[in-house]
Amino acid sequence: MLAMLPVLVVHGGAGNVPRQRAELSCAGVREAARAGYALLRSGRSAMDAVVEAVTLLENNPAFNAGCGSVLNEHGGVEMDALVMDGRTLASGAVSAVRRIANPVQLARLVMEKTQHLCLTAEGASKFARAVGVPEVPEETLITDYARKRWQRNLQPGSNPVECQMGKMGTVGAVAVDSEGNVACATSTGGMLNKMEGRVGDTPCVGCGGYADNLLGAVSPTGHGEAIMKVTLSRLILFYMEQGKTAADASDQALAYMWERVQGLAGVVVVDPRGGWAARFNSLQMAWAAAQNGQLHYGLGKGEDFTLPLQ
Amino acid sequence: MLAMLPVLVVHGGAGNVPRQRAELSCAGVREAARAGYALLRSGRSAMDAVVEAVTLLENNPAFNAGCGSVLNEHGGVEMDALVMDGRTLASGAVSAVRRIANPVQLARLVMEKTQHLCLTAEGASKFARAVGVPEVPEETLITDYARKRWQRNLQPGSNPVECQMGKMGTVGAVAVDSEGNVACATSTGGMLNKMEGRVGDTPCVGCGGYADNLLGAVSPTGHGEAIMKVTLSRLILFYMEQGKTAADASDQALAYMWERVQGLAGVVVVDPRGGWAARFNSLQMAWAAAQNGQLHYGLGKGEDFTLPLQ
Repeated sequence: MLAMLPVLVVHGGAGNVPRQRAELSCAGVREAARAGYALLRSGRSAMDAVVEAVTLLENNPAFNAGCGSVLNEHGGVEMDALVMDGRTLASGAVSAVRRIANPVQLARLVMEKTQHLCLTAEGASKFARAVGVPEVPEETLITDYARKRWQRNLQPGSNPVECQMGKMGTVGAVAVDSEGNVACATSTGGMLNKMEGRVGDTPCVGCGGYADNLLGAVSPTGHGEAIMKVTLSRLILFYMEQGKTAADASDQALAYMWERVQGLAGVVVVDPRGGWAARFNSLQMAWAAAQNGQLHYGLGKGEDFTLPLQ
Repeated sequence: MLAMLPVLVVHGGAGNVPRQRAELSCAGVREAARAGYALLRSGRSAMDAVVEAVTLLENNPAFNAGCGSVLNEHGGVEMDALVMDGRTLASGAVSAVRRIANPVQLARLVMEKTQHLCLTAEGASKFARAVGVPEVPEETLITDYARKRWQRNLQPGSNPVECQMGKMGTVGAVAVDSEGNVACATSTGGMLNKMEGRVGDTPCVGCGGYADNLLGAVSPTGHGEAIMKVTLSRLILFYMEQGKTAADASDQALAYMWERVQGLAGVVVVDPRGGWAARFNSLQMAWAAAQNGQLHYGLGKGEDFTLPLQ
């Protein structure tokens, strides 16, 4: 019998991954999917699983989140993250937070320990100190690769937006646990050479993620401003509410975003019964999905490789 | 013949306005609606009109935005604002910005002068300096009334959330200009005695406002965290897309928000043909609407007073 639940799907960013980084990206998303799925199999919640998967992706320097984040115009790291719990619609977010190893965990603490949904910048840092989340030296979040790309984009005539889409993006995860609860988590270093204080789609509920036990969960990646203009995550769930599958709803929403605002992005999506999708209108998106003892993964259009899960 | 366009609707916050402030609130929203409508009648855009109306409400100390903003836990003023242009889905926002007289104008400048959609905290302040928006002393934004309420809520046993809903809120405006373009603007001092860095629904596209020439425009007010959990503004426009009137869509979305997360809020809404609504599930919301030479306004349930516009 096919066990649809639990299921977990992760992404490591939409864009055009350079060949030398493609294997690192694919290995990273496979590892994150395995780890999150193992938690689900041991009976832990969808929220636990998506936070665990995104924590691993943040810790992996191959991705633009946590260690490996892109640098802003001043060469600094400012990160955004969001979690949402489909049981209660509770959500937590941080925006433009600095010197935190795992913004996704801080976002979860905002959800659990405050009356608020989002804390930004220095206020988020003060909250982190108050709840005992250690501050890390900024240098520990910066890779040589990120610094080189930052420097290149300081040159006249450079185009950080295009460069961003040509490389790697935001990370995220969605899951349904054995009890049918859904959750999403998204984390990012944002846009390459962004202005100080720029906040993208990630910490914005309905844009950088959404989770509702009645509908499903979405985590997107791609051009944040385009994702926000169409509230991409909530849009996909509206299409699913109208009867579309996760894959069809994703394709329809991505096509709509392209038509209205010429945006490129990708998404991972689950429905409460365990249907899932990993779709993108960018050239590539590193993704992996774990369900029913199998690990699916891919990077280019139409790819769906499978491996057995131990 | 009935001229449906142009139309402008403003709100001055949902809650339970104390009697001594009720007339101030009603006079303020009437003045803002008149001013925004005058621009529309002179051929200016919906975006110009909503920014003008919200600027007046920010400058009016009777409202929780600009001068008159509520104070955070440290007695400081941190403000959020959003604008959205229904022609292009372009949007601009600022979050947790300090020492700015008119955050709504700064949000518009983010939309017009940057590649980004939202700037937060110190980054937003630096952008303001770069584009010549003057910094104002924080004292000029703080009223005696705001300081008294802040002090009262520092007492043990106080409940700032309840106190907030018992008083006054966020301000906002929606409009359709003579060419059928829609826009929204929202501005707020946020939640009374909030944590430093707390970001509410206002700067979050789809939550604190949405505008799309194909659907209409929404500006909400009320409990920000509840508004975010259901992406209230985008939800109302989905219901309108499915054929509901602005009023019915608003009532359905507010009822849904109450049922799912027990949230209290209010909204002003327009559709592209000039249909409009001002609806709330809180006890009161100060609102005013200008259309076809008439000014409508109200505060309590079912109120719809009219005055001729010169």
